[in-house]
Amino acid sequence: MPDAVVFSGGASGAWKVVRQVAVTGAPLPPVARIEKGGKAVTDAAWVLMGVTSNLRYTTAAEKRILDATPSVLGRPSATRGALIPITKSARWWGLPQDERRAILEEQSRHIAIGSAYLSKVSRQLVHCRDQAGARFDFLTWFEFAPADEPRFDELLAELRASPEWRFVEHEVEIRLDRGT
Amino acid sequence: MPDAVVFSGGASGAWKVVRQVAVTGAPLPPVARIEKGGKAVTDAAWVLMGVTSNLRYTTAAEKRILDATPSVLGRPSATRGALIPITKSARWWGLPQDERRAILEEQSRHIAIGSAYLSKVSRQLVHCRDQAGARFDFLTWFEFAPADEPRFDELLAELRASPEWRFVEHEVEIRLDRGT
Repeated sequence: MPDAVVFSGGASGAWKVVRQVAVTGAPLPPVARIEKGGKAVTDAAWVLMGVTSNLRYTTAAEKRILDATPSVLGRPSATRGALIPITKSARWWGLPQDERRAILEEQSRHIAIGSAYLSKVSRQLVHCRDQAGARFDFLTWFEFAPADEPRFDELLAELRASPEWRFVEHEVEIRLDRGT
Repeated sequence: MPDAVVFSGGASGAWKVVRQVAVTGAPLPPVARIEKGGKAVTDAAWVLMGVTSNLRYTTAAEKRILDATPSVLGRPSATRGALIPITKSARWWGLPQDERRAILEEQSRHIAIGSAYLSKVSRQLVHCRDQAGARFDFLTWFEFAPADEPRFDELLAELRASPEWRFVEHEVEIRLDRGT
């Protein structure tokens, strides 16, 4: 079964917000900290929730590459993180599967680009589009060591420059630190 | 945005239950009537809810065929219906996208089989796998005229005989009539 993943933004939480910006579209109310878990924090200013789910575009050959470097969350060295909620346009969601796949990978090389960063950047894709009342389609989550933050910046820049990102109509970036 | 679709089983509702069987796995508690809408009925014995969502496997070429005969719900002549909640196995969901697509269409011809019935059987696919706490992956809904019920039986028999159905581990069939 899919696992629920809940991000609570507010005054408490293991992750301190270092920077919070609206990349595209409306901002989220600014918060000091974020807690990530299976349930909402009771005093949260806002809560974003979704579920881990099945692969949507990845082929068997691509899955073998991804599985060779499993994404491990909670590494002691990975004290920096990012929560990037994303919503794609109605035009994206109205495309048939093969056209979305072609934009995502054949044109944008989303999976290939991400694969190059697997050993440095742990990640988790949380789906919320199919949750009634959700404000985002995805809650993307990343963890990395402070020394690897420039690599993470590169990853974001490459993805945001891709044709796929023309379909992103709402994106908020929240950089986090759990070392302080 | 995805639309919420809610099925309330109980003593009230527009659709009278003609037959309710567990095809595979556990039954649902038997009910006399089902209401389909955007919200749950307050006195429901059970509620199943999900959302309409984007296409998961359909190609552009297949979408053109489907779009040529749009599925119209609520036709006055379509007084018979069926609600068939389905759950697929963890093995299915663990497969990469290309392998699921190959089983669904190249091996099982799910879209092609369904296409042959478009003019007779209106349908709606409601997704609930990504809803926290959902008991089913899909709530499949069908409407047809009484004279076309044998065609609907054929459609079900064809799909259930396909390789895709080896991955169905829970399936309940509820036949409905809103004429009585």
